[in-house]
Amino acid sequence: MNFASDNVSPVHPRIMSAIAAANDGPAMPYGGDALTARAVERIREVFGHHGAEVFLVTTGTAANALALSAMVDPFGGVLAHEEAHVNTDECGAPELFTGGAKIIPLPGDGGRISPAVLEERLAAFVHGEHQVLPQALTLTNATEYGQVLTPDEIAALTSTAHDRGLKVHLDGARLANALAALDCTPAEATWKAGVDVLSFGLTKNGAMCAEAVIFFDTGLAARFAWRRKRSGQLLSKGRYLAAQFLAALQDDLWLDLARHANAMAARLAQGLAELPGVRPAHPVQANELFIHLPHPLHEALVTAGAVYYPWRESESTVLARLVTSWATTPEDVDRLLAHARASA
Amino acid sequence: MNFASDNVSPVHPRIMSAIAAANDGPAMPYGGDALTARAVERIREVFGHHGAEVFLVTTGTAANALALSAMVDPFGGVLAHEEAHVNTDECGAPELFTGGAKIIPLPGDGGRISPAVLEERLAAFVHGEHQVLPQALTLTNATEYGQVLTPDEIAALTSTAHDRGLKVHLDGARLANALAALDCTPAEATWKAGVDVLSFGLTKNGAMCAEAVIFFDTGLAARFAWRRKRSGQLLSKGRYLAAQFLAALQDDLWLDLARHANAMAARLAQGLAELPGVRPAHPVQANELFIHLPHPLHEALVTAGAVYYPWRESESTVLARLVTSWATTPEDVDRLLAHARASA
Amino acid sequence: MNFASDNVSPVHPRIMSAIAAANDGPAMPYGGDALTARAVERIREVFGHHGAEVFLVTTGTAANALALSAMVDPFGGVLAHEEAHVNTDECGAPELFTGGAKIIPLPGDGGRISPAVLEERLAAFVHGEHQVLPQALTLTNATEYGQVLTPDEIAALTSTAHDRGLKVHLDGARLANALAALDCTPAEATWKAGVDVLSFGLTKNGAMCAEAVIFFDTGLAARFAWRRKRSGQLLSKGRYLAAQFLAALQDDLWLDLARHANAMAARLAQGLAELPGVRPAHPVQANELFIHLPHPLHEALVTAGAVYYPWRESESTVLARLVTSWATTPEDVDRLLAHARASA
Amino acid sequence: MNFASDNVSPVHPRIMSAIAAANDGPAMPYGGDALTARAVERIREVFGHHGAEVFLVTTGTAANALALSAMVDPFGGVLAHEEAHVNTDECGAPELFTGGAKIIPLPGDGGRISPAVLEERLAAFVHGEHQVLPQALTLTNATEYGQVLTPDEIAALTSTAHDRGLKVHLDGARLANALAALDCTPAEATWKAGVDVLSFGLTKNGAMCAEAVIFFDTGLAARFAWRRKRSGQLLSKGRYLAAQFLAALQDDLWLDLARHANAMAARLAQGLAELPGVRPAHPVQANELFIHLPHPLHEALVTAGAVYYPWRESESTVLARLVTSWATTPEDVDRLLAHARASA
Repeated sequence: MNFASDNVSPVHPRIMSAIAAANDGPAMPYGGDALTARAVERIREVFGHHGAEVFLVTTGTAANALALSAMVDPFGGVLAHEEAHVNTDECGAPELFTGGAKIIPLPGDGGRISPAVLEERLAAFVHGEHQVLPQALTLTNATEYGQVLTPDEIAALTSTAHDRGLKVHLDGARLANALAALDCTPAEATWKAGVDVLSFGLTKNGAMCAEAVIFFDTGLAARFAWRRKRSGQLLSKGRYLAAQFLAALQDDLWLDLARHANAMAARLAQGLAELPGVRPAHPVQANELFIHLPHPLHEALVTAGAVYYPWRESESTVLARLVTSWATTPEDVDRLLAHARASA
Repeated sequence: MNFASDNVSPVHPRIMSAIAAANDGPAMPYGGDALTARAVERIREVFGHHGAEVFLVTTGTAANALALSAMVDPFGGVLAHEEAHVNTDECGAPELFTGGAKIIPLPGDGGRISPAVLEERLAAFVHGEHQVLPQALTLTNATEYGQVLTPDEIAALTSTAHDRGLKVHLDGARLANALAALDCTPAEATWKAGVDVLSFGLTKNGAMCAEAVIFFDTGLAARFAWRRKRSGQLLSKGRYLAAQFLAALQDDLWLDLARHANAMAARLAQGLAELPGVRPAHPVQANELFIHLPHPLHEALVTAGAVYYPWRESESTVLARLVTSWATTPEDVDRLLAHARASA
Repeated sequence: MNFASDNVSPVHPRIMSAIAAANDGPAMPYGGDALTARAVERIREVFGHHGAEVFLVTTGTAANALALSAMVDPFGGVLAHEEAHVNTDECGAPELFTGGAKIIPLPGDGGRISPAVLEERLAAFVHGEHQVLPQALTLTNATEYGQVLTPDEIAALTSTAHDRGLKVHLDGARLANALAALDCTPAEATWKAGVDVLSFGLTKNGAMCAEAVIFFDTGLAARFAWRRKRSGQLLSKGRYLAAQFLAALQDDLWLDLARHANAMAARLAQGLAELPGVRPAHPVQANELFIHLPHPLHEALVTAGAVYYPWRESESTVLARLVTSWATTPEDVDRLLAHARASA
Repeated sequence: MNFASDNVSPVHPRIMSAIAAANDGPAMPYGGDALTARAVERIREVFGHHGAEVFLVTTGTAANALALSAMVDPFGGVLAHEEAHVNTDECGAPELFTGGAKIIPLPGDGGRISPAVLEERLAAFVHGEHQVLPQALTLTNATEYGQVLTPDEIAALTSTAHDRGLKVHLDGARLANALAALDCTPAEATWKAGVDVLSFGLTKNGAMCAEAVIFFDTGLAARFAWRRKRSGQLLSKGRYLAAQFLAALQDDLWLDLARHANAMAARLAQGLAELPGVRPAHPVQANELFIHLPHPLHEALVTAGAVYYPWRESESTVLARLVTSWATTPEDVDRLLAHARASA
């Protein structure tokens, strides 16, 4: 009953097999191997953008911070939701890799930014060089609160940003979960909606450590190879990263895994919502639940061995975050629900 | 006949099996799993230093740059051989992670630094804040030219450095090859010889991507967890890094692999040295050959499909670097030698 | 009628004379001159802290950013009012000089932070290395809204910060104005109230370009000389900085000038407040007015040649900022008031 | 007899008068004043480049480091003489302001770089992203050893650099001394010879603290205002910087002062060279002497109160650096020579 995060899950067997299958004879290092070339090509196909520039890295934090470093000057500003991962959970990696750019926090329910809030904040940059120069907007889909942005919602934000000369980054650590919830293509949820650079994560979705920085605005990628190398993110044995992408993207495995994770979250949400005193904080749209649990229920679950993060507490409830993954089984969900029902 | 680098080799089967075996059920993320705890403990045992602080990362560049960032101020100086990997092949990663510290290049044959050269250079820091503050010395063993430093040689340098208040880092990307050539323990070649922080690499020696930063001077490690995270080097699924260390360090596999690589280098060196016009640039002490080849011989080898790096050219010869690994077979070596003899 | 800022004022004649008087024969460069030694000594006396470490620089932005760089790690967090100068008007200088530390914005009326808000924000740092490490609190006195913090108010905040292991910085760009409003010594408003490092500014108060970073917590100053030099803030002809401090601090000139500026602000505030529709946004405690002016009044003043910054607009009023200085005369004030009355 | 540096000299009276004359009434801050506009225009005229972008700062270290930060990426390389001020005497300021770029040291007699050495070093950048990206060349004129580069010598270097896509910076801390020695215009010694960005220093030549970054390649200046501000180099009372430029550039005062300093150096060199055992290390071309003095002579001079820096020592001699300035008088020189003759 480990619902702490989707990254507690193991590697999907088909991805692990692909890693093992890549283990054959010598291969040129630093991404100069054949598998890497194929993975890059495959990613371009999946996103329907044959000119995209693709760089493989090992962590989502690195992907985000490196992507932003190619988009803003060291004296630049990055507009982000105040609870965006880049602002709250990356220990200043964006600041390190950008050389000191500033994240400008924006409020918004469920990790969402409204175009009006964005516009108003941008309008406040009127003091020239006394302020940082706003140069990028970063979004997350699904958001840190498991909310899914539609292509139209994304387009409204990217269009506001582009009008002011900003570039747009999308943190896609859970892009698969968003896509599984939307009826659209990867292209429609990204570059066709105005996303310039994407952090495309598979680690939370069945891979071992597989993240890609994808430049749809290829002008931004010109010297990205140098950025990746100097950040220590250029693996010498690149084939093992590539193998993960190839396996995950084959036959839509990545979308199937995300669809499963989302279904498990829905099942869990539905079961919990039926209990007295339980109140969802946000609609469950992807694979994360944010849900208010009465204290006795929370304590009973913890005692029963359920693992998840308490986000905040009030007098009567705990706001709990529960995350499902490709590896979550209906039995896992039902076991937790059984404990919940027993204690409710 | 790929002698381009030891990182063209695949993952050793026992290490790959360990990765697959780690793929079982949920595990707490970010190094909070049981395998990581065991790997850290095993590394401490191998180095005979039970208080050492150990941090796993994915690349040697990251290990080196992060280690140095914990040892010097942003206005500090790091004394290094002018051809050290940190100075020539890491694209400024040390400068990024240290916040701008300066690498002070020192000359020396075969990648070696002499204590006299070190002392003389340190004596030139007499202008206070107008110069960077020399705070660290970094060594490489085996050196970038495949030369092995003995514990006594290391101790002479670390003692000079410590006398001036510097901390000492060792780039151990090929530490196993050095140890395989020396008759000493890992402890004797590191902290007992005065090394404060070690970049301990297994990637070139049979792993997939397994590097550790080991603090023997544990005072330097106080906030290293923050450094690692903000550099994007904290893998969420840490167990797969840990599994590599555990497999490599079991039953001395890592030393056996290095011994084999060294033996292949010796076999190759001996065979080539017998040919007319061939002249080793440095004695072969580990798993790298730097050898002057007459142009016709070089061209014949390349035509025959041998892969290696030409380092420099003179009118009559090419200085070639050939690297062997755990995966190099005697047949690989003999095939290259046969081609060489045929064309000599 | 220039009320745009206190930095539109010229240099006070006694300070300009001191600069000219320093222009005599050779003097050792980089602060190695006799005047610099005397200025440092005089600053220590004024603050009643004879061990304080004092460094002269040329701008308030440099003073603040350098001070913070000595207080936090590059992965550190600096808690600040969201409208603090360091957060909104220094173009990321703190991020540059700290190597990427993050400013954590706190809300609060009039530029004030409440201990409860500070405490609550600090309590949210529970995710270890995933978040930056909160290491410093920075305050401003008088605040960016011209509010004066009493020693007791400062002490309440510094004590909360110290309890959590944070160091405390005070931006004293207008410290003289605060002191002129308080009945206390410089010591009581700074280190005796728990301030560890002070940016002590005279530029807004009659100097040409004279700012000092004063370390009451001298352990933080150990290598500050290197920080100042590498930021390009070590003037070669340091005597001309020192001369400004010596003149300003002689016979309490700096306090007299600040008292005058405050009096001019009070006179201006009183006169404006009597007009219909005018409403002060904050009580005037130092030398800055934030005051809501009806649009017609604002327009009339601008037409009459008054210079000041409109801060924000509502439908019926403009929130105007007017700043007085040592050079503001009663006639300047009365002229503006006359125009205001004529148009009200 | 202070020959320690040209920065031990006071401010020239005409420049000091101009500072005092600027002290009149309010002026808009941050370079928004009329004097700054006039100074910028005057600098353009002097350099015969009416589109040049000009930014005033306070120190040569800031000018150099900021200039380079606009020319290279954080992962870039700056080719420089190994004894260039930027490499040896600025405590890593270029590394700070560029975000970690690497200075690539080149050898050469007297602070000069030969085009062949430059070309050879550039040819060694063949490892793509494993190395920093060479993006700028920086020269110094007069060099750190008082040698003067002719327009033709500069053009040979800038042409080599431009052919490889590098931009060229000139550290002109002593540009006036070089121009005084050359029969050419400021334009001919800078942008007409291929210099893209100039650090133009007056501080060593009679000013208080007056340095300018001049962009002849104006594309590089696009966001320089942000760089200057975030480095703490945007003075609020900019008029006092501007006044120094206006006074120095009026009626060729700056060139007259440099001519005088050079003449004093020549007089000193000639007098010393006549003494037994004295041997110039470099021809004296500007206002710096590097000269080998027998130990007894050196000791006698020091005893007599002469102030200058011993650069290096051999068994029989001290290599001394003596610097003259606008304020050095023939009497100063003759006094030192008299002591020297008496002890020779």
